[in-house]
Amino acid sequence: MARVHNFSAGPAALPERVLREAQSELLDFAGSGMSVLEMSHRSPVYQAVIDEAEATLRRLLAIPSNYRVLFLQGGATLQFAGVPLNLMRRGHAGYVVSGNFSKLAWKEGCKYGQAEILASSEDTNFDRIPDLTPVKERAAAGDLDYVHICQNNTIFGTQFHELPDCGSTPLVADVSSCFLSMPLDIERYGLIYAGAQKNAGPSGVTVAIVHEDLIEGGPARADICPTYMGYKLQASKGSMYNTPNTFGIYLCGKVFRWIEETDGLVAMAQRNRAKAELLYHTLDESELFHGTAQRDSRSICNVTFRTNDADLDAAFISFARERGIEGVKGHRLVGGMRASIYNAVTMDSVGALVTCMKEFERELPSRSI
Amino acid sequence: MARVHNFSAGPAALPERVLREAQSELLDFAGSGMSVLEMSHRSPVYQAVIDEAEATLRRLLAIPSNYRVLFLQGGATLQFAGVPLNLMRRGHAGYVVSGNFSKLAWKEGCKYGQAEILASSEDTNFDRIPDLTPVKERAAAGDLDYVHICQNNTIFGTQFHELPDCGSTPLVADVSSCFLSMPLDIERYGLIYAGAQKNAGPSGVTVAIVHEDLIEGGPARADICPTYMGYKLQASKGSMYNTPNTFGIYLCGKVFRWIEETDGLVAMAQRNRAKAELLYHTLDESELFHGTAQRDSRSICNVTFRTNDADLDAAFISFARERGIEGVKGHRLVGGMRASIYNAVTMDSVGALVTCMKEFERELPSRSI
Repeated sequence: MARVHNFSAGPAALPERVLREAQSELLDFAGSGMSVLEMSHRSPVYQAVIDEAEATLRRLLAIPSNYRVLFLQGGATLQFAGVPLNLMRRGHAGYVVSGNFSKLAWKEGCKYGQAEILASSEDTNFDRIPDLTPVKERAAAGDLDYVHICQNNTIFGTQFHELPDCGSTPLVADVSSCFLSMPLDIERYGLIYAGAQKNAGPSGVTVAIVHEDLIEGGPARADICPTYMGYKLQASKGSMYNTPNTFGIYLCGKVFRWIEETDGLVAMAQRNRAKAELLYHTLDESELFHGTAQRDSRSICNVTFRTNDADLDAAFISFARERGIEGVKGHRLVGGMRASIYNAVTMDSVGALVTCMKEFERELPSRSI
Repeated sequence: MARVHNFSAGPAALPERVLREAQSELLDFAGSGMSVLEMSHRSPVYQAVIDEAEATLRRLLAIPSNYRVLFLQGGATLQFAGVPLNLMRRGHAGYVVSGNFSKLAWKEGCKYGQAEILASSEDTNFDRIPDLTPVKERAAAGDLDYVHICQNNTIFGTQFHELPDCGSTPLVADVSSCFLSMPLDIERYGLIYAGAQKNAGPSGVTVAIVHEDLIEGGPARADICPTYMGYKLQASKGSMYNTPNTFGIYLCGKVFRWIEETDGLVAMAQRNRAKAELLYHTLDESELFHGTAQRDSRSICNVTFRTNDADLDAAFISFARERGIEGVKGHRLVGGMRASIYNAVTMDSVGALVTCMKEFERELPSRSI
């Protein structure tokens, strides 16, 4: 059947070109007589795959040479522990709690040292990015190993539009759902990490980009850090201390190249903003649907919205599905709807969703729920 | 080009049928209008994929209902830490050190408690499975949380042909390279785990099968165990506490079904033994090549061999490659050659390797190295 309009929060839509390329070479990669799925990670052919993936990513994000790129497994969730195990050298870090995942990261941090909440928006069910003034003030004391944020809150549809000023304290960011949706100034961060399954590839790969100074001494908690999770070791082994997710990295490399060949991250961010603006404009004009995130915190990656009636929300989700629109059910923590409009979601798909919303609203007086 | 004869130690050959199926549905899985790579792990379509994978695996191995099946990430290496973090309740475990990976597992165990070496074959560079009498005697004391073995030593080409008698002490086995190569009596074990990239699927998936009594209380070291690594939590969430490697699990499911449809594990073991016997017979008859593992410890999964001359070994590896035979270079820790003859390596491929070995030996007098 025709490809649906896929608004899944992750795993999410991939560029059709990437899928077709992977399909065409699935039984014979690069004339090797075997699938990339069957290939030793130690082979020269595969080494070229991971090297090219890293090189392309470095070009896309202009990653300085004193940052290391890692391809890991276990999702952002495993890094919630990896960050303190590697970086909490003085046993004290700050966390901004702006959603479900940043709260989980904070809880994990509490296992390994003193994890201090510097700002939170839990009081309004995470419908905003909290005021970051206290973060700047607290970081200025200079005793924190890092400040951790989740830069885009997938579930709540919010996003940091400016980064906290942490002075010389390293900023660590879970950027899972905004990674590669726009340029990032890597030098503003000590470490970023992202589950690939939003804008960067399939699930099962976590990309980390870390300043080499932060990892030079090995894991802060080498006494208890699982060897696999040591950033320094994985960096020294080119992400191949053990067998990585070879196929996942291969697909990420294809996605990186697709971004580069469709004019890079500045152009990608423009397209993503245009998609988001169309959706937010529709919400602002609607008498039925309204956005759930506060305006100045709205995400360009995940657009959360609802009616004022849970039954109507459910009816809309079914209505959309009948029109080939999938994945718009909101997360249970916020309810309603969510459209994840990652890189591979086209303006055409967003247009289809907007048309569907307007049609649903127009037909509403004649509906019996 | 034609498919090569692939003897890689992992990632390794996959059944061609599995690859062709995955290829044919890569852009539209089960009429969903999207790739399985793009599909939410929370969708009913994907839930059916992971459910079927588990159900097939349960049939293949006759897994009792009081064992839980987990699909994790991070390879066997991450489980070297996961095992003690979850199971070392009294802080004391026994390890059999029969190769590189079992030694790494032991070292990791030392981080989290007292990890005692009960038997080792390091004195002869791991060319054998050590005598297991001391294991039985030590386990009988009843104070160990578990006894850990690596059941097949990929690098050294050795394999346990009987399991240690641990009495009531749970036996934990890294079965990565023999998993699904033959039936296993699951009830002999407390826990087995395996990187999938040998007989079970692609890299990036780790399968664990664990007795529910062992995990009921949560991780032994809940104070420091990364949440992701908690067996009880992952079991309670159907391996979806966070986003799993969705595509990897999907492919594992296809491999499981392929095993079932090619008559299951008894038949698979017969084919694997026949392949191994042909190779070992060739080695035993040869005046040039000889096996590196002691006879009663020989693996049916990884056949390690060499000439007595490193240059000749290198010449043979090139000679084989010219004949479409890939992946026979031995691991640097043992040198020489290694043929990994996992499930998807056909007798035809093994025959091609044997022919190549004989040809090389026959031509030897006329070769100048």
